[in-house]
Amino acid sequence: MGDESGRRRPRRRGGEAKSERSPRPVNYTQLRHPFTAQSAFSQDAVAAMHDTAIRILQELGIKTLLPEARELFRAAGALVDEERQMVRIGRDIVDDALRTAPPSFRIRAGNPKREQIYEDGSLMFLPGAGCPNVTDSVRGRRPGSLRDFKETISLHQAFDVIHMLGPSAEPQDVPVNLRHYAMLQTQLSLSDKPTFAYARGKQQAEECFEMIRLAHGLDDAAFADDVWIFTIINTNSPRQLDIPMSQGLIDFARAGQLSIVTPFCLAGAMAPITVAGALTLQHSEALAAIALTQLAKPGAPVSYGSFSSNVDMKSGSPAFGTPEHVKATLGAGQLARHIGLPWRAASGSASNISDAQGATENTTGAWGCMLANATSIVHAAGWLEGGLAFGYEKFINDIEAIQTLAELCTAPPGDDDSIGFDAIAGVDPGGHFFASPHTMERYETAFYEPVVADLSNFGAWTESGGLTSTDRAAKIWQTVLGEFKAPAGCAERAGRLDEFIAKGTEAGGAPIES
Amino acid sequence: MGDESGRRRPRRRGGEAKSERSPRPVNYTQLRHPFTAQSAFSQDAVAAMHDTAIRILQELGIKTLLPEARELFRAAGALVDEERQMVRIGRDIVDDALRTAPPSFRIRAGNPKREQIYEDGSLMFLPGAGCPNVTDSVRGRRPGSLRDFKETISLHQAFDVIHMLGPSAEPQDVPVNLRHYAMLQTQLSLSDKPTFAYARGKQQAEECFEMIRLAHGLDDAAFADDVWIFTIINTNSPRQLDIPMSQGLIDFARAGQLSIVTPFCLAGAMAPITVAGALTLQHSEALAAIALTQLAKPGAPVSYGSFSSNVDMKSGSPAFGTPEHVKATLGAGQLARHIGLPWRAASGSASNISDAQGATENTTGAWGCMLANATSIVHAAGWLEGGLAFGYEKFINDIEAIQTLAELCTAPPGDDDSIGFDAIAGVDPGGHFFASPHTMERYETAFYEPVVADLSNFGAWTESGGLTSTDRAAKIWQTVLGEFKAPAGCAERAGRLDEFIAKGTEAGGAPIES
Repeated sequence: MGDESGRRRPRRRGGEAKSERSPRPVNYTQLRHPFTAQSAFSQDAVAAMHDTAIRILQELGIKTLLPEARELFRAAGALVDEERQMVRIGRDIVDDALRTAPPSFRIRAGNPKREQIYEDGSLMFLPGAGCPNVTDSVRGRRPGSLRDFKETISLHQAFDVIHMLGPSAEPQDVPVNLRHYAMLQTQLSLSDKPTFAYARGKQQAEECFEMIRLAHGLDDAAFADDVWIFTIINTNSPRQLDIPMSQGLIDFARAGQLSIVTPFCLAGAMAPITVAGALTLQHSEALAAIALTQLAKPGAPVSYGSFSSNVDMKSGSPAFGTPEHVKATLGAGQLARHIGLPWRAASGSASNISDAQGATENTTGAWGCMLANATSIVHAAGWLEGGLAFGYEKFINDIEAIQTLAELCTAPPGDDDSIGFDAIAGVDPGGHFFASPHTMERYETAFYEPVVADLSNFGAWTESGGLTSTDRAAKIWQTVLGEFKAPAGCAERAGRLDEFIAKGTEAGGAPIES
Repeated sequence: MGDESGRRRPRRRGGEAKSERSPRPVNYTQLRHPFTAQSAFSQDAVAAMHDTAIRILQELGIKTLLPEARELFRAAGALVDEERQMVRIGRDIVDDALRTAPPSFRIRAGNPKREQIYEDGSLMFLPGAGCPNVTDSVRGRRPGSLRDFKETISLHQAFDVIHMLGPSAEPQDVPVNLRHYAMLQTQLSLSDKPTFAYARGKQQAEECFEMIRLAHGLDDAAFADDVWIFTIINTNSPRQLDIPMSQGLIDFARAGQLSIVTPFCLAGAMAPITVAGALTLQHSEALAAIALTQLAKPGAPVSYGSFSSNVDMKSGSPAFGTPEHVKATLGAGQLARHIGLPWRAASGSASNISDAQGATENTTGAWGCMLANATSIVHAAGWLEGGLAFGYEKFINDIEAIQTLAELCTAPPGDDDSIGFDAIAGVDPGGHFFASPHTMERYETAFYEPVVADLSNFGAWTESGGLTSTDRAAKIWQTVLGEFKAPAGCAERAGRLDEFIAKGTEAGGAPIES
């Protein structure tokens, strides 16, 4: 689909044959945006936001806690105040970085069919991430554990519309110095999708890189040649890059791996209260982080990112799916295209439970990301409480919303047979098409089949228990987990880490840096 | 907002001053679409659907049960088979109708501030309509009554984002021959928004027109000059116009009042299973109905309309907010623009309760209508069970979703002060903007204030009862109804009908035709 002036078609990539079971031209695995990117600001305002962001970097600077990062900036000509740890970055440094940062790169996966080309026009959904807690209606709300992490990774694997993994539930029962082992091995043992690692210090990052090389049997060159693992880098808004984040930007860049730069600029809290102001601060911080990756290794893959929204004025909590969130997302897309980089946005929910509020918030936010043509949409399924909990029932309900969006990436056929004059001629006025040959040829595959939506009438629905979609989702995730089997190759890939992890654990693991 | 190439600004109309209490540039009362219309089909496919629809009219014809309608078609040159009641309509008749049907017209209301210009680019939300039942969590599900109709009309009046009234809940406790009195007087007594009447026969329609003239103190010319009342015309798909619908098209047209033509083409049931086929059938039926209005009175206001979606293959029920529904809506918008008429679309929900499913369905459908640039979006709030019940809690939750869309019609400011370099310079790295003058000047009005969303954290939310948004909505509608006061002028307008209704009732009311 596209705008009236020129329709953009989903691009198919090699190896992505249609499913044999379904002749429907559906491809959730690699998606291209169907809609023309929409805007919230004039082009003049976008240029002014970009120029102001540069001015912030030049005149105000970014506090950069990591000495190595300050040194990289200084070597490139930035003005560094060591005492105040402030780095003032010139426009030339930013311009150079935007020249070398690649507009398109490949993200590898255990299963080649799950590879992604990360570029403007691509569309990827990522699950709710960074949650310290998990919640489901069977076992209640609880701090995340390794079991929960394994379950949520299994849920992510089970739905093709989730394109990359994420740190859904923090496994708090695993010591932090060993947690990177558990999180990466879990991902590799249960999923063949692109993997994630936290940037929590140099040793953890390098051990993750080594585990990836071991799991996939890669030499250094093959590893460096593509993105095999990614991290999310949140700046400390306003205008601060902390030690593990700076270290992560440097280490992932040097390893040729992906940093998704994501300032979390809440308008009215850590950022100006205006959408334009929050975006401008976000943009300056993102440009600084992107520059750092390119100073560490020119050409390193990096994603621009936006997570600007507003605070709720009653509670002070972050809000999602609000008008301001959508406007910020649209503006962020304009800024990303202004600098020519692929970018991430986010949907998500502030609701405390899988209810109508949570569904409205996440569906609204996801549509905003679609209209903004975000390359990747994080927190697209399962994110409750503004990220403080991953919800199992929420995940299932959100899958319905984003599968619907994924379906829109395939245009409906408009050929003569689909228009169907003969079919229409074959049914008398007031008749029906149930038994029409035109229907019979297509009925098994014509329509999207819901995951959790129940369309039975009120009587049938009442007789079957009068369940809400959250009640039904509880059964669905249990069934999915009960039937879950790790895909081919997972056991082998994960098994290749056993010895490394055993040795690392014996050596005390790797410290986290803060 | 708009696309990158040229931003379309909300157009302000006279008298729509900003609210004095809020300096925020919000105008829910008259909205203009912020996004560029998106498409589902190529222009060639749209032209082929239009041509096929004409071919259906020419070669297959429309069964037209009302003799007066057949006579109008025949007089215009259509080929009429009286025995089979089939009317074959030539392209010239359609082309003539599309030349005279106005692309823009004014819809009047009790309050001039609630007037609408019905044209491409305008955006109006209409409530869930046509429901035989109502449901709320206090009193349960029940057949609609006059009390329910009064309550739902009050709810429609209470939210500016609802632009026109509708037959939310059928007052089944009022005899059908008197029901038009009760429904119109209720609307006039409780609301100053544009009013609706069912097309259930000539006498009922004419009595409704007379009541409108009495209520607003209009002579015949003043009444005929603008749209004061509208009706929805559903064809009997496939290819049939029944007696009350044809009569309504003729009577409303001759009175200069609005028919919103809405074939209900469920792909796989009353229409071909393909989106293109369902739309083509819809288009042919709509063109026939539009032609009838223009034969009755050239220049009569008429709205193209779409309500094509798919059936659920498990239950046979109509589905809403599905990929097929959104694709059909996008295609319908292309067809409407192809013929140059304003048009209605619909969101709605098949869920049996206000839950995550219902919220996802309606939010998805409403975004689809936004992207398709529908002039009016029917069933945008409160529609459950595919229209078999109007839900009070659903209405409140849907209001949140569509108010968010309404907010998007106002672009965020992008001036230098909003970009806020000085504000950013005034906050140290790692600090916050809570006390920034930039924030203090704006915090009361910067953000959309939710109706039902609760953004408190899990602890506070749990302490306050752990309510879902549906639970909270139950309190909200009770508060809204408890505080409801009919707007100025309503009592006078409605009171002017008393004598007419008393006399009409004494005379036995007006029969419905079928």
